[in-house]
Amino acid sequence: MVESMDNKNMKIFSLSSNRPLAEKIAQTCGLKLGEATINRFSDGEIQIKIDESIRGDAVYIIQSLSEPINANIMELFIMIDAVRRTSAKSINVIIPYYGYARHSAKKRERKAIIAKLIARVLERAGIDRVLTLDLHAAQIQGFFNKPVDNLKADKLMAKHMLENYDLDNAVVVSPDHGGVGRARGFAGLIDAPIAIIDNRDPENDAHIPTFIIGDVKDKVAIVADDMIDTASRAVKAANVLAKNGASAVYLVTTHGIFAGDAIKRIEESPIKKVIVSDSVYISDEKKIDKLDIVSVADLMGKAILRIHNNKSVGKLFR
Amino acid sequence: MVESMDNKNMKIFSLSSNRPLAEKIAQTCGLKLGEATINRFSDGEIQIKIDESIRGDAVYIIQSLSEPINANIMELFIMIDAVRRTSAKSINVIIPYYGYARHSAKKRERKAIIAKLIARVLERAGIDRVLTLDLHAAQIQGFFNKPVDNLKADKLMAKHMLENYDLDNAVVVSPDHGGVGRARGFAGLIDAPIAIIDNRDPENDAHIPTFIIGDVKDKVAIVADDMIDTASRAVKAANVLAKNGASAVYLVTTHGIFAGDAIKRIEESPIKKVIVSDSVYISDEKKIDKLDIVSVADLMGKAILRIHNNKSVGKLFR
Amino acid sequence: MVESMDNKNMKIFSLSSNRPLAEKIAQTCGLKLGEATINRFSDGEIQIKIDESIRGDAVYIIQSLSEPINANIMELFIMIDAVRRTSAKSINVIIPYYGYARHSAKKRERKAIIAKLIARVLERAGIDRVLTLDLHAAQIQGFFNKPVDNLKADKLMAKHMLENYDLDNAVVVSPDHGGVGRARGFAGLIDAPIAIIDNRDPENDAHIPTFIIGDVKDKVAIVADDMIDTASRAVKAANVLAKNGASAVYLVTTHGIFAGDAIKRIEESPIKKVIVSDSVYISDEKKIDKLDIVSVADLMGKAILRIHNNKSVGKLFR
Amino acid sequence: MVESMDNKNMKIFSLSSNRPLAEKIAQTCGLKLGEATINRFSDGEIQIKIDESIRGDAVYIIQSLSEPINANIMELFIMIDAVRRTSAKSINVIIPYYGYARHSAKKRERKAIIAKLIARVLERAGIDRVLTLDLHAAQIQGFFNKPVDNLKADKLMAKHMLENYDLDNAVVVSPDHGGVGRARGFAGLIDAPIAIIDNRDPENDAHIPTFIIGDVKDKVAIVADDMIDTASRAVKAANVLAKNGASAVYLVTTHGIFAGDAIKRIEESPIKKVIVSDSVYISDEKKIDKLDIVSVADLMGKAILRIHNNKSVGKLFR
Amino acid sequence: MVESMDNKNMKIFSLSSNRPLAEKIAQTCGLKLGEATINRFSDGEIQIKIDESIRGDAVYIIQSLSEPINANIMELFIMIDAVRRTSAKSINVIIPYYGYARHSAKKRERKAIIAKLIARVLERAGIDRVLTLDLHAAQIQGFFNKPVDNLKADKLMAKHMLENYDLDNAVVVSPDHGGVGRARGFAGLIDAPIAIIDNRDPENDAHIPTFIIGDVKDKVAIVADDMIDTASRAVKAANVLAKNGASAVYLVTTHGIFAGDAIKRIEESPIKKVIVSDSVYISDEKKIDKLDIVSVADLMGKAILRIHNNKSVGKLFR
Amino acid sequence: MVESMDNKNMKIFSLSSNRPLAEKIAQTCGLKLGEATINRFSDGEIQIKIDESIRGDAVYIIQSLSEPINANIMELFIMIDAVRRTSAKSINVIIPYYGYARHSAKKRERKAIIAKLIARVLERAGIDRVLTLDLHAAQIQGFFNKPVDNLKADKLMAKHMLENYDLDNAVVVSPDHGGVGRARGFAGLIDAPIAIIDNRDPENDAHIPTFIIGDVKDKVAIVADDMIDTASRAVKAANVLAKNGASAVYLVTTHGIFAGDAIKRIEESPIKKVIVSDSVYISDEKKIDKLDIVSVADLMGKAILRIHNNKSVGKLFR
Repeated sequence: MVESMDNKNMKIFSLSSNRPLAEKIAQTCGLKLGEATINRFSDGEIQIKIDESIRGDAVYIIQSLSEPINANIMELFIMIDAVRRTSAKSINVIIPYYGYARHSAKKRERKAIIAKLIARVLERAGIDRVLTLDLHAAQIQGFFNKPVDNLKADKLMAKHMLENYDLDNAVVVSPDHGGVGRARGFAGLIDAPIAIIDNRDPENDAHIPTFIIGDVKDKVAIVADDMIDTASRAVKAANVLAKNGASAVYLVTTHGIFAGDAIKRIEESPIKKVIVSDSVYISDEKKIDKLDIVSVADLMGKAILRIHNNKSVGKLFR
Repeated sequence: MVESMDNKNMKIFSLSSNRPLAEKIAQTCGLKLGEATINRFSDGEIQIKIDESIRGDAVYIIQSLSEPINANIMELFIMIDAVRRTSAKSINVIIPYYGYARHSAKKRERKAIIAKLIARVLERAGIDRVLTLDLHAAQIQGFFNKPVDNLKADKLMAKHMLENYDLDNAVVVSPDHGGVGRARGFAGLIDAPIAIIDNRDPENDAHIPTFIIGDVKDKVAIVADDMIDTASRAVKAANVLAKNGASAVYLVTTHGIFAGDAIKRIEESPIKKVIVSDSVYISDEKKIDKLDIVSVADLMGKAILRIHNNKSVGKLFR
Repeated sequence: MVESMDNKNMKIFSLSSNRPLAEKIAQTCGLKLGEATINRFSDGEIQIKIDESIRGDAVYIIQSLSEPINANIMELFIMIDAVRRTSAKSINVIIPYYGYARHSAKKRERKAIIAKLIARVLERAGIDRVLTLDLHAAQIQGFFNKPVDNLKADKLMAKHMLENYDLDNAVVVSPDHGGVGRARGFAGLIDAPIAIIDNRDPENDAHIPTFIIGDVKDKVAIVADDMIDTASRAVKAANVLAKNGASAVYLVTTHGIFAGDAIKRIEESPIKKVIVSDSVYISDEKKIDKLDIVSVADLMGKAILRIHNNKSVGKLFR
Repeated sequence: MVESMDNKNMKIFSLSSNRPLAEKIAQTCGLKLGEATINRFSDGEIQIKIDESIRGDAVYIIQSLSEPINANIMELFIMIDAVRRTSAKSINVIIPYYGYARHSAKKRERKAIIAKLIARVLERAGIDRVLTLDLHAAQIQGFFNKPVDNLKADKLMAKHMLENYDLDNAVVVSPDHGGVGRARGFAGLIDAPIAIIDNRDPENDAHIPTFIIGDVKDKVAIVADDMIDTASRAVKAANVLAKNGASAVYLVTTHGIFAGDAIKRIEESPIKKVIVSDSVYISDEKKIDKLDIVSVADLMGKAILRIHNNKSVGKLFR
Repeated sequence: MVESMDNKNMKIFSLSSNRPLAEKIAQTCGLKLGEATINRFSDGEIQIKIDESIRGDAVYIIQSLSEPINANIMELFIMIDAVRRTSAKSINVIIPYYGYARHSAKKRERKAIIAKLIARVLERAGIDRVLTLDLHAAQIQGFFNKPVDNLKADKLMAKHMLENYDLDNAVVVSPDHGGVGRARGFAGLIDAPIAIIDNRDPENDAHIPTFIIGDVKDKVAIVADDMIDTASRAVKAANVLAKNGASAVYLVTTHGIFAGDAIKRIEESPIKKVIVSDSVYISDEKKIDKLDIVSVADLMGKAILRIHNNKSVGKLFR
Repeated sequence: MVESMDNKNMKIFSLSSNRPLAEKIAQTCGLKLGEATINRFSDGEIQIKIDESIRGDAVYIIQSLSEPINANIMELFIMIDAVRRTSAKSINVIIPYYGYARHSAKKRERKAIIAKLIARVLERAGIDRVLTLDLHAAQIQGFFNKPVDNLKADKLMAKHMLENYDLDNAVVVSPDHGGVGRARGFAGLIDAPIAIIDNRDPENDAHIPTFIIGDVKDKVAIVADDMIDTASRAVKAANVLAKNGASAVYLVTTHGIFAGDAIKRIEESPIKKVIVSDSVYISDEKKIDKLDIVSVADLMGKAILRIHNNKSVGKLFR
C-alpha cells in the first residue's frame, strides 16, 4: 500500500475482462482480490457466486467494458445485483474502459444512446459510485446521477514519452475534428504545437481527400486519441502524416481495443510506436514490439483508496 | 391474416435471435417485418438503426433470450432505447424464450436474481407490455410491473402428440420435484397418469441414486419439461425410465436450447422423439430425425393481434 | 443474548399481529421491545406514535401478515412511514409470515399479483431490508429489490419430530403437485422417501378423485406443507392417506393460520399431530392437544443479530 | 345519461364500500357497473377477479375509504394492480370519501403522514387520475403527482337547506379553529354571518372551557364541518350553541362516518337535523329521522363523464 | 457551541439569500461556514464551486427561498447537485423561509402546486432531510418523502413580546379565516382571547366590507400571521382594528418578506410594532424603528446540532 | 399552415422568454397561441393560470432558457406542473435555446452538471418530449430519457450567407478546440476550408498568446460558433484574424445571448456582420446594423407539426 490509508471493510472484486489489471489495483490497495466464482454455462448464461461475506463492506467491482463486451456488461449487471442483495455497505464500480462510449449522442434519428442506457441500468442495478478513465465524451458523467470520477491517463502517458523519446521537435496531431481539445491538452503537457487531420466527410472514411491543418513537416508527429479500435483511422492518419513529411509518427492512446486486424495494420504502417495503457486487457499475441504499455493500476488503486478514505480524487491530477 | 383484426399502426421488428419465427409471426399478423439494420462491430459493439418511421406506431419487438444470450439481451435493450427515443406509441416486447429464468430465486446467499434483473432493465428501458411463452416460473410475471401475457404451448404439443403417436397407455413423467405441476397439466390434456423422477440431491445430478415414484412399467413415458438445455437431465430420466421398463420414452418440451453436446446425447439415448417448439431458433444441423418441431408462430401472432385490438388474450387458451 | 454480538443502536418494535413472538425475539437479541402506541379508532383508522427517539438507529419492525391481515398490512405501512420520517438509520422489516403469498403469479387473466404489490409498497414506504420465513414461493424474494433473507424452519421442525416421534418407517407426503420440492427437502432431513397426493383438478378441490403416487401403506405419513389455512386440504390428504393404509398421519407446517373451522376440522380428522411454528399468533383457544408449537423466535432473533453485525445469515442454515 | 356525452370505452367498477352510490353514478353515466368478483377468504385475504375484458378501456373504480377502512384500502390497491396488469387504457379512481385525511400533517414527531402514504401507494399501484370530494385539507391534492379533481358538495347542501328550512336568521358556525374557511364558504352560499367555537386546547376536547366568538343568540345555528365521525365534537358544539341561546342547531357535513355511538349521541343531542351526503354508505339502521341525505351521485357521475370527454370539471362548480 | 454536542464531519454552507443568518447558525454549531464560490454570470447563469473537500461529510446547506426567489431556488438545486456528485455522506437543506408556500393547493383548475413541485425537485436533486421554519401549511411536510422538521418561532416571539410589551389586556387577531389556528396557538402562549377579521370575499381584498368577529374594543390587538409580504392585508387589518377601538395594534409574524412598498405602508399605518424573525434577510434600509427583529439563528443552530447528533428535535419545542 | 398537416387537439403556449418567436411558430402551425396568464408578484413569485381547457390535448410549451434564465426555468417547471395536473394528453416542451448547456460535464471536482439537472427536473415535472435547437453538446440529448429532437440551424444560416455575401474565398474558423466539428460542418455547407484559433490555455482567456492553425490570409473569415454570450471570445478571434490578414470577418452563430457589453464590443470590433437566429429574444436596442437575424420559426413550426402528425423530423434536415 503506497499511502498510509485505511483499507478496512473494503473488498475488491475482479470480473472477467481484465484480471491482471485488477490484481495490480488490489495490490496498490494492499489487498487480495475477493473470492467469487463466475460460471459461463454452455447455453451462454452467466452465474456469479460471491464466496465470502461482504455484509457491511464497501465493495469495489473492476470490469472493463471490452470484448466480449455484451457478456462483460451482463456480468457486471449480475455482479451488482448479487452484491446489492447481500447488504453490502456500498457498491462502487471501477470501469477502466467504458465501452459503447461513442454511442453517447443521437446523431441520426431512430438510434439508441447506448452509453446512457448502460449508465441507467448500472444505476438501476444499484451502484453508488463510478470510477472510470478517459471517457470518450466527458458528458457521459452527466448520464449518471451518482458520483462519477473520471481519471485521466495523459500525464502518465506524457511522462512515459518524455522519458523515452526525443520530443524536442514534436507536434501533437488530432486525427479528427472532435479530438482537438484532447490533442491540445496533451500538447500542453509536452509543450508542443498541434495540427489537425481534416477529413471532410467524417462519416465516410474511405473516399474523401484528407488534408492536414497545421505544420507537420520534419516533425515528430504524435497522434493523440482516446482509443484505438480497428486502427484504420490511426493508420490512415499515419500515412497522411508520413506523406506530408513527418519525420516520425507515434500514436498515444489510452484504450487499446485492437479489434479485428488492428495489430496487423499497425505492424504494416509507418507508425513507430503505440503508447497505450492497460485499461483493456492485451493478450500476449497482441504485445508486439511496437507497443509500449503504461499501467494505470497505480493511478486507479490510489483513486480507490482516496475514495474509500473520503479524500479528494482531484488531488491525483494536479 | 387469420382473423378479421386490425393491423394498422402496428410494426413488428425482429432482432437477431430467431428471425424465421419472427417472419412467420409477422405473416400471421398480415405484415412484413419492419426494416432495421443491426450491426455487430469487430469490437463486439452492437448498433441498431431503425430504417422506417415508427412515430405514433405500436411497435412489437421479437427476441428470444437464447444463445448468444448476453448479446441478444443487449440487442433487445438497445432496440428498446432506440424505439423509445423515436416517440413510438407503445413498445411491446415478444420474448418467445425468456432465458436466465432458472435464476428467478435466490437459493443461496450472495447470488443475483437475474430473471428479475432483466425484467427491471426492460422496464427501465421503457417497455409497455411483455408477451412470452411458458415461463420457467409463473412468478416471473410478478417481476414486471407492466402487463405480461404468458402463453402456453402445451395444447399445441398435446394435439401434435395425440395426432401422431399412440398415447393410449401413456404416463407423463416429471423429471424433477419442481415440475410436477407442469407434468400434471400435460397429463390432463392427454388424459394420463403421472410419475416423478425422485432425485434426492437436485443440486448434485451425478452421484445420487434416482428413484421413480409412480408406475411406468410397460408404459409410454412422456417426460414433460419446459426447456431442454444440455439434455443431460432428460437423458438421465430416459435411462432410468428405460431401466424401469418403460415401453418408449418421449420428451416434450417448449424451449429447445440444445446447448453443448445436447443433440449428440439425445441421439445416443433411448429417447424416441423430442417434441419441441420453435421458440428458440434451431439450426439445420440440429434438426435430427428425432426432433418434431411444433411452431408457436400462429399462437404468438394471434396473441399479438388480440393485444393490438384490445381483445382478451386468455381466449386463446380455452 | 445468546451470542457475543453487538446490539447497540438497535431498536426492535412489535406491531399488533404477534406480540408474544416479538417479545421472545427481542429477548434473544438482549433487548426490550421499543415503545410505540398503536391506536385503532372507532372509524377503523390506525394511528401509530413512536414514543422514544430512534434517530440514527437501525430499526427492526416485527409484523406477521396474518388476520386481520389488511389492517396488519396497513399498520406495517404506517409504521414504516413514521420511522422513515424520523431519520432512522435503517428500516428492517421482520415478517415471520408473509401473507397473500399464494397470490404470487397471475394464473388467470385480470388478476392482481398481490404478493408483488405488497413488496412494491413496502419498498416505496422506505424499507432497507426484509427478513422472512418460509416464503410460499422462493421467487417472492425477486419481487423485492432490497435484500431479503428467507429463513427456513424445516431443520427446527425435523429436529423436533426426530426427538419426539418414531419416524423409522416414515414417508413424507406432498399434499399437491407444487409442494414436492418442499416435501423432498424435509424427507432429506429425516431420511425418508416421498409420496404425492395427485389431485387432478387442483382448482376444484371437491369433486375430483384423488390418487396417491408413491407408497404409503403401513407407513407413518408426514404431510409437509408451508402453511395451514382452512385445513381442508390437509384433512382431505389425511383421509386419503388413512384410506390407503398409512399407519399414522402427521402434519408439519410452518405457518398456522387456522382460519374458520380449521381447528375443528383437525380435531375430527385422522391427523395425529400438527407440528407448527409460532410465526403466526395462535390464541389459547386454538391450542388444542393435537398441536405441537415449535418456536422460531430464537432462529429469527439470531438472524437479526447477524444482520445487525454484518454477519452472514446463511450460516444459520448449515 | 343527463348530458350528450360519450361513454364509449368506459368501464365503471364498484368495490365493496358503497355499492348503492356506485350504481347511481354508473346510471348517471348511462352504464351498468362492470362485472368483477370480490372474495374475502376466511383468513381475511381479498381476491378480485375482473370478469369482463377491459383491454384498451378507461376504467373508473369507485371506492370510499370508509369502514372497514383498511380492508377497503387494500381492496382498492388490489383492484388497481389487477386492472394495470390487464392493459387498460387508463385507471381512474373515484374516492367519494378519502379517509385517513386528518393524518395529512406531522403534528408531533415520529408520526406517519398517512394521507400521503395512501397517495404514494395509489400512484405506485398505477393510477392515472383521482376524483374525490371535499378533501379534509386541500393540500392533499399536492400529495399526488397525478391530476386530482376535488369536487365540492357545498352547493348541493346549501340548495337543499334553502329549499327545506327557514334560514333567514341563520349563522354558520365553525366547530373549531381550522374550519373557519369552510364555514365562511358555506355562509357565503346562504348569505349568513359566521361564528367560531373557541376550544382553547384542541388536543384535549374534554376538560377545557369552550367559548363562542361571534353572535349566535336567537339565531338558527348551522354547524358546518367536512365530516362527522364519533359526533362528539358536533354534539358538544350543539350543546354550547343551545346554552348560548341559539334558536335551533343544524349540522351540515359531507362525509357521514357515524362511528361508534355517533347516531345515539345525535339522537340525544339538541341537533335538529343533520344534512349529510351519501359519500359514505349509511346503513338502514343509521337512517334516523334526524338525517337528511343529499346524494352526490349525479355530481360525481357528471364529473366522470366530463373527465372521459376531456371537458373541464371546474365548470361543475360555477 | 451552546451544548456539548459533536460537530465532527459536519459542514455548513450558506448560499446567497441570507448569509448573516447562516453565519450566526454556524456560530451556534461552533463552526465557520464552508468555502464555496458562487458566480452569477452576465447571462444570468449561476455557477457554484465547492472549495473544500466534503467527501464523507454531512453537509448542511442554508438557503431561504426569498427574493430573488427563482434564482435562489436554482442556486439551491445546483448546490445540491454539486454536493451529491462529490460523495458527501448526507445532504441536509435548511430552509428558514420556504417560499411559494401559498401555492400548496390547487384552488382553481389548471394551476400548478408549486410548493410540491419544489419538494419533488429537491428530493430528485438528492436531499436527505429538510429543516424549515413555520411552514405556511403544515401539509407541505407531506409533499416530501424525506424527513422534514418544521420548527416554530412562536415561543421566541411570545417571550419577546411578554418581556417588552404590556400584554395584560391583549387579544390575538387572525387576519383571515385560514389563520385562526395559528392565532389560537399564539393566544395560548400569552394567555389571551382571540378575534377574527371576517373578509367575506377572500379572493377580492379590495371591495368587500370586512367585519370583526370577537371583541377588540380598548384592547391591545396582536395580529398574528406567518408571513408579511406586501403588508396590504396587515395594514387593512390594522385599520379595521383601529376603527373598532383597539387601543394599540401589533403585528407578529415569522417571515418578513416586505415586498414592494410594504415598509412604507407599515410606516404610514396604525401598526405600532412589527415583531418579525430574521428567517428572511432584511436589508438595512428596511430596518425601520417599528421593526423588532427576533433571531431564529440559535433555534436553528441547535436543531442542526440535534439532527447531527441523532437527538430528538421535538425537544426544542417543549 | 405550410403543409397539409393536422393541427387538431394541439395547443401551443408561449411563456415569457421569447413571445415574438412563439407567435411566428404558432402561425406556421396555423394556430393562435393558447391563453394563459403569467403573473410575477412583487415578492418574485410566479403564478401561471391556463385560461382555456386543455384536457386531452397535446400541449406544446415554448420557452428559451435565456435571461432572466432562472426565472424562465422556474416558469417552465411551473407551467409543466400546471399542465400535468390538468390531464393533458401530452406535454411537449420546445426549447429554442437550452441554457446552462456549457455546464454539461464535470470538468473540475465538486461542481454540478446543470444541463443534466434541468433535464432531470423537466422529466420529473412530467414532460413527454423535447424539441430543441443546436444543443451546445449533442450528448445533452442523452441527459433525457424522453425523446429529444435537436434541430439544426446551419442550413438556414449557410443559405442566408450564400445569398447575401460573396463567400468565394472564405475560410470557416473555429474559435476554440472544441468547436472544430461544428466549423467543419458549416464549411461543408459553403464548400470552404477551415482554420482553428489555438488558444493554449482555454481556461484563461486573457494572458496567453493565441495562434491560428490553417490559412486565413486574404480570406473572408467566418467564425462559426453555437452561441454568442459576452462576445469577448468572438471579438478576440476577430482581432487575431484581422491581424493575420483576413480580408473580412463574419460571425455566424445560432444563439445570440448578447450579455453585458456584448453589443458594444461587437460594434467596436473588426467583425463585419453577425449572422444570428431568433432562438433568443433580441430587444430592439440590440438590433444594430451589424446584425442579420435569420428566423428559425418556420423550421421549428414545421418540426412541431411533424411531431404532432407522427412524421419523421429527420426529414427536415436532408
